[in-house]
Amino acid sequence: MTGHAASREHIIALSGGVGGAKLALGLARIMPSESLTIIANTADDFVHFGLHISPDIDTVLYTLADLANPETGWGRRGETWEFMGAMGGLGGETWFNLGDRDLALHVLRTNKLNQGATLSDVTAEMAHVMGIHVDVMPMSNDPVRTMVRTGDGLLPFQHYFVRDRCEPSVTGFYFDGIDGARPHPKLMRHLISRDLGAIIICPSNPFVSVDPILQLNGVRNVLKETSAPIVAVSPIIGGRAIKGPAAKMMKELGMPVSALGVAGFYKDLVDGFVIDEEDEASAAEIEALGMSVLITRTFMQSLEDREALAAATLEFAASLGKH
Amino acid sequence: MTGHAASREHIIALSGGVGGAKLALGLARIMPSESLTIIANTADDFVHFGLHISPDIDTVLYTLADLANPETGWGRRGETWEFMGAMGGLGGETWFNLGDRDLALHVLRTNKLNQGATLSDVTAEMAHVMGIHVDVMPMSNDPVRTMVRTGDGLLPFQHYFVRDRCEPSVTGFYFDGIDGARPHPKLMRHLISRDLGAIIICPSNPFVSVDPILQLNGVRNVLKETSAPIVAVSPIIGGRAIKGPAAKMMKELGMPVSALGVAGFYKDLVDGFVIDEEDEASAAEIEALGMSVLITRTFMQSLEDREALAAATLEFAASLGKH
Repeated sequence: MTGHAASREHIIALSGGVGGAKLALGLARIMPSESLTIIANTADDFVHFGLHISPDIDTVLYTLADLANPETGWGRRGETWEFMGAMGGLGGETWFNLGDRDLALHVLRTNKLNQGATLSDVTAEMAHVMGIHVDVMPMSNDPVRTMVRTGDGLLPFQHYFVRDRCEPSVTGFYFDGIDGARPHPKLMRHLISRDLGAIIICPSNPFVSVDPILQLNGVRNVLKETSAPIVAVSPIIGGRAIKGPAAKMMKELGMPVSALGVAGFYKDLVDGFVIDEEDEASAAEIEALGMSVLITRTFMQSLEDREALAAATLEFAASLGKH
Repeated sequence: MTGHAASREHIIALSGGVGGAKLALGLARIMPSESLTIIANTADDFVHFGLHISPDIDTVLYTLADLANPETGWGRRGETWEFMGAMGGLGGETWFNLGDRDLALHVLRTNKLNQGATLSDVTAEMAHVMGIHVDVMPMSNDPVRTMVRTGDGLLPFQHYFVRDRCEPSVTGFYFDGIDGARPHPKLMRHLISRDLGAIIICPSNPFVSVDPILQLNGVRNVLKETSAPIVAVSPIIGGRAIKGPAAKMMKELGMPVSALGVAGFYKDLVDGFVIDEEDEASAAEIEALGMSVLITRTFMQSLEDREALAAATLEFAASLGKH
């Protein structure tokens, strides 16, 4: 994709937390801001102490605003924990860490939601005050909550993910509220627009970060009908997830823990799949699933890595253009 | 009052924030814990960022738990301000300071209130986890909100007190919700109990800390009929308020800024009035209002000062016993 194409055509990036946010940052840095919309998963959202927490939106915002904590993959850099210490002293739950600075976002958002703002209103306002120029929006303003089916029963996502440290063995997922949730209207408008250049599925967890977006009413149908290329970047490199439980989930679900496994999950949806050089040997098998493959460096350490992967992914998508 | 009397008879202490909490601590340290009930003013309460803030309850709790900040008179000792810094960065209001540790109490309380707990439930639970053994309870579980009549119009109390730093000239007060607010049932039970030993009005602001309690439905009537002595401790020493806007308010309301002025406010209600040695010259005039006077050191710097004033006040009350 040339710079010219990037400025003419709109790119939709579907993102979960840390890995997705890294690629979203790369895209934001190399694209005209008006040409990029980042759709964040909200099925990880939950209410804790009465506060509305949106982990993936927050990670995307903090990452784009250069406030993110690179060690944890969530929360803010240079965070302090006085609130949590006092909460423990008062007998409150302490399994979900909320940093003192991070808390400002949760308190402010919750207050605005309670006053009638939508999650996308608040997200846009927070992006604006953080100096973010690309559109960041929740997949939906309606609540969708990932429930994890495990050997220990059905667990709300954050209980599985944080409280139980992904230890229970996963047998499946259920997105509570998905049937009644409307995809964000701007997402649908972009997806049916003639200006749509590509849909990029960021290297996020396919099951709990990307699938909730895909399962929203009408999204899969629109994606199947769009003439714009759909490209996914593998979150698995050499059989490992860079961050989070994707690899463990794949194993427990009886899937190959590999880029090939992820490609199988996105079969019949994506036109192109981006894998790391380390997984070059899988390219033929992935192509046999009916998709093009780009082999490049997908492991993102530096800011330059993020920009390079973003550029390569955009160029790959442009090469797949159907119109 | 002897130790024997203290263990037999119940003491009710009416308290606002810092000055009242100091005497409440003195009482708590020298009395059997089951014999003392501290009633905290809640007309200063307000909702900020959707969080229920109860400044006087909190100051009493933090003071009794030895967590209070002695410099500010509010909040916790050794507090940090990362939340406020981040809030400012996100465009949130910053005129009301909420410390990182203090915030845990507001978040926990708000969540419990939203789940259906009463303010007294939450106050009792927080007192318990803080290791406080005396009963601390809000004057009412119903919302009462002090509105300050000023040259700038009617201001909610915290806007007058914190945001505007008590600068507007006061012409009066209105307690929004007072007509419908029920005094805490335990307060009324104690006030009509045969075990009632005394009512102590702590050295708090007469207008905005004590008067809301007195104006609750039925409280003044019960106080007029009780045989237990009612003793107030002057919050004014030598024409100055130790903390807060009491002296400024008295001046603006055209009252003498003195212990005598406060005594006049409590005329026909209290049986005894405790003044500082510095105000000894006013004793005769105060007695002429129809109340006994105790002259003692009322300025509380050390823990010993708090205990000594508490002991002197209890002894004074016992000497006024009508039964």
